[in-house]
Amino acid sequence: MTNQIIFVTGNPHKVAEAVAICAPRGITIVQNDCGYPELQDDDVARVAAYGAEHVVNRLDCAVIVEDTGLYIDALNGFPGPYAAYVYDTIGNAGILTLMRDTGGNDERRATFRSIIGYCKPGMTAITFEGTVTGRIAYEERGAGGFGYDPIFEIDGVAFASMGDDAKNKVSHRAKSFEKFAEWFIRHGKA
Amino acid sequence: MTNQIIFVTGNPHKVAEAVAICAPRGITIVQNDCGYPELQDDDVARVAAYGAEHVVNRLDCAVIVEDTGLYIDALNGFPGPYAAYVYDTIGNAGILTLMRDTGGNDERRATFRSIIGYCKPGMTAITFEGTVTGRIAYEERGAGGFGYDPIFEIDGVAFASMGDDAKNKVSHRAKSFEKFAEWFIRHGKA
Repeated sequence: MTNQIIFVTGNPHKVAEAVAICAPRGITIVQNDCGYPELQDDDVARVAAYGAEHVVNRLDCAVIVEDTGLYIDALNGFPGPYAAYVYDTIGNAGILTLMRDTGGNDERRATFRSIIGYCKPGMTAITFEGTVTGRIAYEERGAGGFGYDPIFEIDGVAFASMGDDAKNKVSHRAKSFEKFAEWFIRHGKA
Repeated sequence: MTNQIIFVTGNPHKVAEAVAICAPRGITIVQNDCGYPELQDDDVARVAAYGAEHVVNRLDCAVIVEDTGLYIDALNGFPGPYAAYVYDTIGNAGILTLMRDTGGNDERRATFRSIIGYCKPGMTAITFEGTVTGRIAYEERGAGGFGYDPIFEIDGVAFASMGDDAKNKVSHRAKSFEKFAEWFIRHGKA
């Protein structure tokens, strides 16, 4: 019992990635789709912390939430913390349209930022961050992953093209869950 | 004293529009720039209600907040409730780029939605809505207004081209403040 944690999310892809990182470390991820209020805030860390604290008040047990931002240099950080909403409306096609006039690789730099907010009853949330910097591709590629994975590439290979195992070695979300898992094994079980 | 209301916003243009509607009705708008948490929520009414209730807990007096969304049909409702963030990052130029392949006027339909959240100590927030439907222009026009006003047009005239008085006769924000003022005069003074 003590090595399990409730992950509040409606996204099955995120659950799969969390399990891939946490299961080998002896941590059981239990999905809960109860939802939580997400702040409009440029800082995804505050969004995750606020969400985790809200859920704890409702469920009265230790939980994690995860929030992802995508920051594209040439677009002044857009879509930033609103990555999910922007994906649901204008999608990858919209991002590529906005990048149509953006030239070489340096100008196409983008950073994924994943923040896990952990909270348990009676404490304030703590957060674990993972980031990865790559480039926005010129077209969609690959059939794996989800969300922006077809247009986010590292060394010319899109997240959606590299397979789950390879993505989980370098992705923002893998890094944040590695940090969380390491901490949870030492301090989190209670 | 009883005919004044605190308007929590950092946007001086919104204050000016609120004053233009409320002052002739005997209501004094007092700006407060203390900020409040904005939810990520597709429904700006929930954003405004949540914000108003938060501010009341902090200031312990009756307040209003105002939240605006811009919903463009051809972009599946984008930028929606994140109009402010999207304006600050990709701006009107970004919206026009996204609309580059969108054709005739019917496809360019867009709706501005303004919601005022009113709250006073010991009550839940109530909201007042104003909407206006127009079209996204093919280019920026006019030097008035703020935000998306240069690319939002009604009958071919951009908000930024029509002058403050004309805009205040038809705008979403004028309508929400008219509804609020009418209610406040009858029920809000206390």
